[in-house]
Amino acid sequence: MSLEGRFDAETGVVRVGNDARQRYHDSRGYGYPLEGNEIALAPVEAAHLLYRGDLDAVVDDATGDRLDFQAFASREPGTDFGVRFLVYADLRERGFYLSPAAEPWVDDPPGGAVDFAVFPRGKGPGDGEIGYALRIIGERTDVPASSLADGVLAVVDEESEITYFEVTGSEPTGNTATSLPSGVDATLLADRVVLWEPPIDLYEDAFYGQPLEGREYERPTLQCSLLEAAYLARRDVIDLEFGAVRERGREVEGERFDRRLRVYTELREREIVPKTGYKFGADFRTYAEVESVAELGHSELLVRVHPAEAVFEPRDLALDVRLAHGVRKTMVFALVERGDGATPAETDIEWWSIERLTP
Amino acid sequence: MSLEGRFDAETGVVRVGNDARQRYHDSRGYGYPLEGNEIALAPVEAAHLLYRGDLDAVVDDATGDRLDFQAFASREPGTDFGVRFLVYADLRERGFYLSPAAEPWVDDPPGGAVDFAVFPRGKGPGDGEIGYALRIIGERTDVPASSLADGVLAVVDEESEITYFEVTGSEPTGNTATSLPSGVDATLLADRVVLWEPPIDLYEDAFYGQPLEGREYERPTLQCSLLEAAYLARRDVIDLEFGAVRERGREVEGERFDRRLRVYTELREREIVPKTGYKFGADFRTYAEVESVAELGHSELLVRVHPAEAVFEPRDLALDVRLAHGVRKTMVFALVERGDGATPAETDIEWWSIERLTP
Repeated sequence: MSLEGRFDAETGVVRVGNDARQRYHDSRGYGYPLEGNEIALAPVEAAHLLYRGDLDAVVDDATGDRLDFQAFASREPGTDFGVRFLVYADLRERGFYLSPAAEPWVDDPPGGAVDFAVFPRGKGPGDGEIGYALRIIGERTDVPASSLADGVLAVVDEESEITYFEVTGSEPTGNTATSLPSGVDATLLADRVVLWEPPIDLYEDAFYGQPLEGREYERPTLQCSLLEAAYLARRDVIDLEFGAVRERGREVEGERFDRRLRVYTELREREIVPKTGYKFGADFRTYAEVESVAELGHSELLVRVHPAEAVFEPRDLALDVRLAHGVRKTMVFALVERGDGATPAETDIEWWSIERLTP
Repeated sequence: MSLEGRFDAETGVVRVGNDARQRYHDSRGYGYPLEGNEIALAPVEAAHLLYRGDLDAVVDDATGDRLDFQAFASREPGTDFGVRFLVYADLRERGFYLSPAAEPWVDDPPGGAVDFAVFPRGKGPGDGEIGYALRIIGERTDVPASSLADGVLAVVDEESEITYFEVTGSEPTGNTATSLPSGVDATLLADRVVLWEPPIDLYEDAFYGQPLEGREYERPTLQCSLLEAAYLARRDVIDLEFGAVRERGREVEGERFDRRLRVYTELREREIVPKTGYKFGADFRTYAEVESVAELGHSELLVRVHPAEAVFEPRDLALDVRLAHGVRKTMVFALVERGDGATPAETDIEWWSIERLTP
């Protein structure tokens, strides 16, 4: 007997009777039960059953048309149905159960812009345990920084390949204790600062700056970034005026300087060593624990600093995360609230780690 | 006998006598000869000799001050002297001769915004052969797309690490001959197009689209990007109207769509296969020669499409080039002149390959 569904435009679900409840809901986690024998399917679920040949057709209640997969999938061409279907199908193909993140498919669904609740491998909708919240976008959809949330973001590119990103709110921590000298002679140049004869521990233990080639003496000539110098000036380690260094920083990179200084300061306060991330296209590469530069391990994080109101393109997420993965580091976005930039304030940075996920 | 130079503010050079000509010019390629026994050094060259201890001091003619390296380097703190010195010193350290790209240091210097002429390893200023034109910037200096030129770009990051990029104007070529069907049934969705039953060669030989999982039949369900579909529509391969597909493309990504379509079309016309570069953060990954998808090699280029008036941040260059290198591909920037977007025009795309260089 052929199994057909009926699309009810008023409720937006596809209703299926006969033995659909046992075949598709109870044993395979599609839809939710209705009175009697019927189940209700979300359009994506119905489309998947059509695609697999488990449903022969969906009848449009309003028009009486019998829709096959092609016709049903083409019904609402202006929506994101396509990308949602592709991800749904991909995760089903990988052996996961997943349900629309709404009642009555799941009790207590995750909040926010979540499309599906994905269940841990081996678990289904009835087991009461959600693996993660899944959000689906096309590669051309902007992602406001304010919309980042714990869970998985699936990006469907223009050729229907899917990239999964695991997004986790996480505070970085470190364990680099440093003692700082004071009154070091320094010169402010156009876009960097030279420290003429600091104690070598400033570099070798605390990892500030970079010695000029050939001058790694007991008191080396140390070149620092404007950021490092601003931080050191504020602590009277060098004999430059903090305001002058900050002003130069703002001349060079505008308001980005204040944001980066806020994050640099926060990282140092957390006993993390931030160094420039330029070669990786990031703001910082960070070392959680530096005992000495001679025994330096690899940096663990790449940090990108963004204003809290930033909007990301999925393409840039792909690029940042892929590069980080390629050099065995984790990408972290530091979102900075607008502030006066003068003093660090603990509550105004949000930290998000973003990693590739193979579900 | 201590060797000193004299800084002449009027000409901007440092003059050195005694045996400087033989020691520093003839045998080590610094400066250019003056009348009598003297040579003239650019400030960067003089600073390097001070740095190495080959000069004891530079006397400022105007003030009579005797300047050591620290004082001489700090003389003009608002200029790019710092970054120029760092790169000069680095290349010297690596064993290269290099001279300011101006007469009388070199005859017939390279045009444009070039800082130094770097000589091939083993050659010097007197051998009459320039290896490449070198331009030096700090990582915060914007790079207008219009300023790209054959040569090397050295970027000095905020901690004085130097990254060298080799920039080459280069036209991509390919050898993928394809024959296209016509009148294929297709549906335009929100951000992609589905071809319902095209001949499988359209994918397997010509590498258009991506088959939907589980539907790789003799006549597969093929999903195409809006770009691919626009190109195919214009050639009557599919039964959608070109204007409608282009309009959808513009809704999704604005004027970027027309630029990407121009480049996509140009690549296809050159018998190159462009596929989406999303996972690499690029516009396209390209295959020069595709015989069949079954025997597909690796794509060779990552192409980024930019408007001709774009301005790059060195950080983005670092990211793009590093990622390309990490996946063994070459980064190419395609600069597109503003146009009506209706027809491809051969003269309106400039192609620049950008690669990491270890001098």
